[in-house]
Amino acid sequence: MELVLLRHGESVWNRENRYTGWTDVDLSEKGHEEAKQAGKLLQDYGYQFDVCYTSYLKRAIHTAWDVLDEMDLSWITIQKTWRLNERHYGALQGINKTDTVKNYGEEQVRQWRRSYAVVPPLLKPGDARCPNREAKYQTVQPTDLPRGESLEMTVARVVPYYQQVIQQAMLSGRKVLVAAHGNSLRALLMYIEQIDEADILSLELQTGVPIICRFDEDGNFIERFTLR
Amino acid sequence: MELVLLRHGESVWNRENRYTGWTDVDLSEKGHEEAKQAGKLLQDYGYQFDVCYTSYLKRAIHTAWDVLDEMDLSWITIQKTWRLNERHYGALQGINKTDTVKNYGEEQVRQWRRSYAVVPPLLKPGDARCPNREAKYQTVQPTDLPRGESLEMTVARVVPYYQQVIQQAMLSGRKVLVAAHGNSLRALLMYIEQIDEADILSLELQTGVPIICRFDEDGNFIERFTLR
Repeated sequence: MELVLLRHGESVWNRENRYTGWTDVDLSEKGHEEAKQAGKLLQDYGYQFDVCYTSYLKRAIHTAWDVLDEMDLSWITIQKTWRLNERHYGALQGINKTDTVKNYGEEQVRQWRRSYAVVPPLLKPGDARCPNREAKYQTVQPTDLPRGESLEMTVARVVPYYQQVIQQAMLSGRKVLVAAHGNSLRALLMYIEQIDEADILSLELQTGVPIICRFDEDGNFIERFTLR
Repeated sequence: MELVLLRHGESVWNRENRYTGWTDVDLSEKGHEEAKQAGKLLQDYGYQFDVCYTSYLKRAIHTAWDVLDEMDLSWITIQKTWRLNERHYGALQGINKTDTVKNYGEEQVRQWRRSYAVVPPLLKPGDARCPNREAKYQTVQPTDLPRGESLEMTVARVVPYYQQVIQQAMLSGRKVLVAAHGNSLRALLMYIEQIDEADILSLELQTGVPIICRFDEDGNFIERFTLR
């Protein structure tokens, strides 16, 4: 039993080195190419999918579209959920990463980026960037919508979706692709592999590189590797 | 209450003047352009959608993707169903329309294309083009899968889906886009507007032109118009 995870291709803000989080930035041209390349690779290795899970953010959705089109699987179900969104970067969203270091100092930024439970500065209620102002989050419980998240908070909303939806699909024999984000995939892997808080943040996932998790038939994790 | 219908943009075989039916031919470059243009137009007129219904065929799915991306609605649910597929053209699929006239005569071809109940030559069981050989139709009841259809047979599989799914979504207040095919949309309009068998086949739907059906609050049809 295998699960395929894919971090979206390069986005326009990855290239500009800005904190993105829930900002709905599209793939760059290079990002589309990376996604198509991932599709070709999965095809060449003989992968097939019955269902794809992705976030509410277009850089992940368009990555799924590119991959599935390449694999001639545009027709499969693509299930979108806010729970697979990137970690919400609060008031840092939109800001250049280098500028943040200048403004807040290296140690503070390291804490925001590399500690498990530290929350970035929250968006103020009423800030135009708050998710509750966007059409796509109107069906989400308002108390579930973050204004900034630690990785711990991201894990807390990703893992229940994995347990209740993705894992169930896998256990019922469906071949699953998850197209998501650096931190929502970290959250998944942390749970799947029981990685501890100290180690999870040093796990770097490259854009557009398929990650394969292999399980035994009872769903116990065996190993992880990437396709090249 | 409004329902928006859209025939997919030009496909590669539209351009080559071949019978397509359930053959899974992609959009041409022009077809992608038409679809994006339709998205811009819908956006300019202030349309919004909560859900999109489309077929299992990539020329319709990719039309939906192009439209929704243009409208910044990539995140909405796209529900795919074989029931919205194009009319199955049986053994004519893949054949050039002009060649068909040469081989079978003008009157025979007129009957296949322009009469309501006449069935084209069926695919032989075991023909590689039969839907039961394709992964995407494995969850469909085998007895539901055609080897060639009259428009009447297309209507018989489209209308129940409209009644049970699309109409229910509309009546519950959801804003609906249907991205489909010349004949599956004819089937829908025939039912919605109570168009009779003699008239339905002369109704020509252009690729990439949004069709708006307007209903009163009880769901009774009022009028149809196109956006330009």
